[in-house]
Amino acid sequence: MSTIQRPSGRSPNSLREVRFTRHFTQHAEGSVLVEFGATKVICTASIEDKVPGFLKGKGQGWLTAEYGMLPRSTHTRMDREAAKGKQSGRTQEIQRLIGRSLRAAFDLEAFGERTLHLDCDVIQADGGTRTAAISGAMVAAYDAFSKMLAAGTIDAIPVKQFVAAVSVGVYRGQPVLDLDYLEDSDCDTDMNVVMEDQGHFIEVQGTAEGHAFERATLNQLLDLAESGIAEIIQNQKRALGLIS
Amino acid sequence: MSTIQRPSGRSPNSLREVRFTRHFTQHAEGSVLVEFGATKVICTASIEDKVPGFLKGKGQGWLTAEYGMLPRSTHTRMDREAAKGKQSGRTQEIQRLIGRSLRAAFDLEAFGERTLHLDCDVIQADGGTRTAAISGAMVAAYDAFSKMLAAGTIDAIPVKQFVAAVSVGVYRGQPVLDLDYLEDSDCDTDMNVVMEDQGHFIEVQGTAEGHAFERATLNQLLDLAESGIAEIIQNQKRALGLIS
Amino acid sequence: MSTIQRPSGRSPNSLREVRFTRHFTQHAEGSVLVEFGATKVICTASIEDKVPGFLKGKGQGWLTAEYGMLPRSTHTRMDREAAKGKQSGRTQEIQRLIGRSLRAAFDLEAFGERTLHLDCDVIQADGGTRTAAISGAMVAAYDAFSKMLAAGTIDAIPVKQFVAAVSVGVYRGQPVLDLDYLEDSDCDTDMNVVMEDQGHFIEVQGTAEGHAFERATLNQLLDLAESGIAEIIQNQKRALGLIS
Amino acid sequence: MSTIQRPSGRSPNSLREVRFTRHFTQHAEGSVLVEFGATKVICTASIEDKVPGFLKGKGQGWLTAEYGMLPRSTHTRMDREAAKGKQSGRTQEIQRLIGRSLRAAFDLEAFGERTLHLDCDVIQADGGTRTAAISGAMVAAYDAFSKMLAAGTIDAIPVKQFVAAVSVGVYRGQPVLDLDYLEDSDCDTDMNVVMEDQGHFIEVQGTAEGHAFERATLNQLLDLAESGIAEIIQNQKRALGLIS
Amino acid sequence: MSTIQRPSGRSPNSLREVRFTRHFTQHAEGSVLVEFGATKVICTASIEDKVPGFLKGKGQGWLTAEYGMLPRSTHTRMDREAAKGKQSGRTQEIQRLIGRSLRAAFDLEAFGERTLHLDCDVIQADGGTRTAAISGAMVAAYDAFSKMLAAGTIDAIPVKQFVAAVSVGVYRGQPVLDLDYLEDSDCDTDMNVVMEDQGHFIEVQGTAEGHAFERATLNQLLDLAESGIAEIIQNQKRALGLIS
Amino acid sequence: MSTIQRPSGRSPNSLREVRFTRHFTQHAEGSVLVEFGATKVICTASIEDKVPGFLKGKGQGWLTAEYGMLPRSTHTRMDREAAKGKQSGRTQEIQRLIGRSLRAAFDLEAFGERTLHLDCDVIQADGGTRTAAISGAMVAAYDAFSKMLAAGTIDAIPVKQFVAAVSVGVYRGQPVLDLDYLEDSDCDTDMNVVMEDQGHFIEVQGTAEGHAFERATLNQLLDLAESGIAEIIQNQKRALGLIS
Repeated sequence: MSTIQRPSGRSPNSLREVRFTRHFTQHAEGSVLVEFGATKVICTASIEDKVPGFLKGKGQGWLTAEYGMLPRSTHTRMDREAAKGKQSGRTQEIQRLIGRSLRAAFDLEAFGERTLHLDCDVIQADGGTRTAAISGAMVAAYDAFSKMLAAGTIDAIPVKQFVAAVSVGVYRGQPVLDLDYLEDSDCDTDMNVVMEDQGHFIEVQGTAEGHAFERATLNQLLDLAESGIAEIIQNQKRALGLIS
Repeated sequence: MSTIQRPSGRSPNSLREVRFTRHFTQHAEGSVLVEFGATKVICTASIEDKVPGFLKGKGQGWLTAEYGMLPRSTHTRMDREAAKGKQSGRTQEIQRLIGRSLRAAFDLEAFGERTLHLDCDVIQADGGTRTAAISGAMVAAYDAFSKMLAAGTIDAIPVKQFVAAVSVGVYRGQPVLDLDYLEDSDCDTDMNVVMEDQGHFIEVQGTAEGHAFERATLNQLLDLAESGIAEIIQNQKRALGLIS
Repeated sequence: MSTIQRPSGRSPNSLREVRFTRHFTQHAEGSVLVEFGATKVICTASIEDKVPGFLKGKGQGWLTAEYGMLPRSTHTRMDREAAKGKQSGRTQEIQRLIGRSLRAAFDLEAFGERTLHLDCDVIQADGGTRTAAISGAMVAAYDAFSKMLAAGTIDAIPVKQFVAAVSVGVYRGQPVLDLDYLEDSDCDTDMNVVMEDQGHFIEVQGTAEGHAFERATLNQLLDLAESGIAEIIQNQKRALGLIS
Repeated sequence: MSTIQRPSGRSPNSLREVRFTRHFTQHAEGSVLVEFGATKVICTASIEDKVPGFLKGKGQGWLTAEYGMLPRSTHTRMDREAAKGKQSGRTQEIQRLIGRSLRAAFDLEAFGERTLHLDCDVIQADGGTRTAAISGAMVAAYDAFSKMLAAGTIDAIPVKQFVAAVSVGVYRGQPVLDLDYLEDSDCDTDMNVVMEDQGHFIEVQGTAEGHAFERATLNQLLDLAESGIAEIIQNQKRALGLIS
Repeated sequence: MSTIQRPSGRSPNSLREVRFTRHFTQHAEGSVLVEFGATKVICTASIEDKVPGFLKGKGQGWLTAEYGMLPRSTHTRMDREAAKGKQSGRTQEIQRLIGRSLRAAFDLEAFGERTLHLDCDVIQADGGTRTAAISGAMVAAYDAFSKMLAAGTIDAIPVKQFVAAVSVGVYRGQPVLDLDYLEDSDCDTDMNVVMEDQGHFIEVQGTAEGHAFERATLNQLLDLAESGIAEIIQNQKRALGLIS
Repeated sequence: MSTIQRPSGRSPNSLREVRFTRHFTQHAEGSVLVEFGATKVICTASIEDKVPGFLKGKGQGWLTAEYGMLPRSTHTRMDREAAKGKQSGRTQEIQRLIGRSLRAAFDLEAFGERTLHLDCDVIQADGGTRTAAISGAMVAAYDAFSKMLAAGTIDAIPVKQFVAAVSVGVYRGQPVLDLDYLEDSDCDTDMNVVMEDQGHFIEVQGTAEGHAFERATLNQLLDLAESGIAEIIQNQKRALGLIS
């Protein structure tokens, strides 16, 4: 389908190997190491028995997400945000995206006045950290709710739909799926897509890095994203033992 | 085309009245009051004769954007970000979007070691402040470069393409163009689109507020955005006296 | 009376044109664009149905003020305070002055456990922004209380006295009224005076910019301020339709 | 002259005992404990061999001031500003006032590219801390320059004029000089005055705490300030051994 | 015992003169100027009638400490932490040490739901500021509790044991007691020791500045600390009139 | 030797299993996962080709350390320091300790004007995170210098001595080595010890959590630390292939 060689040798519509390691750390209600190839993110889900002020007394829950990168998860060391005293605009943008995406996955009215905190910490970055984070947080959150179900705290896992995310982009003129760092730092268009398991969209965020992109290209990218996300959701469900 | 009544009585594919008032304040090299209906944003473009550290000595320019809202530009008063000591994640996300969009409009290599600062300050908000800001900043920046051209500082206005932005969304099941506050606070899908004058995309940012949206809906929304942005770019050029 | 030519051609005891545009923006309970010549400040008055902690349960109200300048309201662009993460000492000094001045105008015990927030945002600066802000905030606050009166929330507008402010200074040896930027940046003594409608003082803040000033000069400056403020208060009342 | 009893038993035109203890701490180039009655402020003057960026290469010096209060210098403990992470508006206002006042005392062009840092730290507060600070900083700065003169670094002490400050106010209807805490917390009008040794004004900052004040009252207060400051300047010069 | 000359001429096991001046300032419940030679620290103890959130309703008290240095307490001026907007790591480390040490001295369960705030502010530094602060805070806290006892607020001073602190170190190969600045800035090992009046340890914090130190050296240093602290505790009790 | 049962069943002088996994992440010059039982810390060593300002032009290197905990590395979720905008006093204290300890291990004058950044991030906490961090950072730093040696950038690994750290404490009256969380949260005395491979001390930091501790106890604890650290250093060298 293409004469362009991807740095990884993958075909344009191939994901990197996607792995979910559950119970990665021991304290969190849900804890998942998600790997999209060499990108590795620890996603933990923590249940807290209270909600933010604006929800108090409404009988419903809340879900919020935070994102961080270890200083040397990247090729050259980044400053530590805790030491600088503020989170970058990029960090805030990503954690807002993770939060919105996961709030679409769960029924906030169905788990009482509790907050689910999702922490996504990148320990190794090779492109696609935000999409890996969303996909891993889905599994961690599911595990946390399973634990609550097992403990009898809730009657059912309040999942509305599975969500997962992937990046797509135009690398040397070729639309490709799931960009790694080499592609990401040299691509023309970069798009992050979040979908649910019916193939509908939760978020579409596309940016022309170099040239503006045409409607036809956008369509090719969305096709790639659709197939990639369907595959990731299969992986999520398999990791959780919901399908085999 | 639709049986849904928009609160403003507009048809689904109608923009609000779009106005650009140039030379709105007197000190900035470019100063524009942009109005999308009742949404009013002051966009100023300021030229500074230096570049950030990472560009020093490279002979090229830089363009950056900041965004703010007056505390009572909104229905209920918001806290002043300067008094709180930090900009919200939303603010940072918007100013990053404005910056990326406008960097697509101008050739940064063609105006020397200078920085163009775009300041977009909302004085009255009624939905669509970020898309109005992008559209107004385009005109303010153009004016600032015109001033430099007139002064002989540059040989040509370093414009690559005109850019403008509009919001689209699904209001009560109906895809509509250029949402006002009443629609925005009650819509299912919300998308901000930035395009250039050839009809290609600079940014597409769509979010499912309630239900996930289908590919067909996405396409309808993009159709609306295309026509709306083309109209806004006509308005920009007319305001600048480039067309009549 | 003087052989010194003011840059504006005004006589020493002349104000610039003072204008109050009410209902300048639509959301605030009171919203005024005040202009002292080319100095333009948006003053909004917002009513909030609660008071700070130290006043809870005391049955009285509170009034507080904030001040800001758009980054390019000035000749050269200033850094945005929200982006820097702190308000300058000058900003805090000015907003404390506005708050004290307006608390002298209204009877805080007469409008219930509510807070009146005054936001004064400079969109174009040409000297005298703080005195314009005080004078405009008076009108915005009056409008906000009128709205409450009309709604039956209060029985009377809790005004004790009208207040207004003006700057005076010594420009090239000549005491002058209402300094514009050219005078302000080249003057010897700079004084901001706040008075009420009986001709008594609320605040007197005089600073020797160059040489220390004599008692006689101080007296001449106060004479100028008295006449200027009386005129501004007439303007305020006329703008509010209280006199014709 | 009055039937009002001041809490201290002083007559209306009496200062509290004013004392300057030079060489109070050992490291600073100038170090003075200034006492206005029970108000005690440590004022140190430190010479640094560089100037702020905006003065580099101009061959002139700079003078700047900072002010602080020990948390329990006051009747009830205040939060430590270093722990809160910001200086209050009041603190910034006061340190700006001290800086302006002392810059009027010395010739900044006559001591080379050096910065004189004045630190005024209140260890016990009983009203009038800012006026004590200004008066003490004058002596500390003079001492620091004397040390430079003795070391041959400068040819003359770059003093233009001595400055000192005092508060005046209306206590129970009676204009009084040098308010202590009991008076200050119960007065109608509060004014801080800074003057030089010719009897001219550097700063006049008057505030109506309760009722607006009349011109006649202002004049009485200025009379009191004039006589008080003349006396403080005599004390400063005596402490420095310039007069006996 | 040694052929090394200490800069001060003291013998290796000699303290500097230790002085406690009680009632140093007038507002605090306890206020002590502690001097270890030329090191001078103002220690105040303030009683507040509430406890932090985590202790509310438990019927017990809390004790917390803060530490600061006046900018020119040192040889060269340090930046003011309040102006920088944050306390250094060193400051936080020291105030945590003071707090832990003093919480060992008093029975927190025996003075009701109150907080004792200890503020230790260095006005002149010559080495050993943290050990002087701990030793002085002990006396200030005792005084504050005495005042409460006298007022009948508590039935007994809730002291469990007296605590004091001293520094020891290896200066030019010689273990010495109570290092001054000249020794501190040129020593090999530096240790701060906090003990109670039975000769047991509260804190031991030793750091190899140059070479790692041997167990035998550690023992010599602890011997010196034991004798020094015993002497300081005698001084504390004498200052409080508990022994003569 | 004891009748006390440790929660883990270990004997009083037993370490938990200590493991060093080198090359844990791929970008850093040195990257080690260190495990002390269930405590897991990622230690990366990053070389940067510049030094802080105070060392510029001196031809020597610098080494600095930072420490963090993932929010859910602990039993209950902690707030993210980057989101709070500041590092806690505990965090700063720990990273200062790691920095001092590792600066004792390497010859800063022998690797040119470069900075070695050590980042220690706890992904799972079960007591002893700071001692694990120091021990792991030693291996990561060694690996980073090995890489520089292999690249010919330096002529020899600038190691002066190996350093490692361990905690010791008194648990239910029994001195024990290498406390886990259950012991740490219920112990009387807690001490962190850093030593080098000759058995000398770099740091000794002991705190009486409950009762003050006697000299004899201190000696028992130091004996335990000595043997534990010797064992950890063997592990470090074995992990690096320096011994077998």
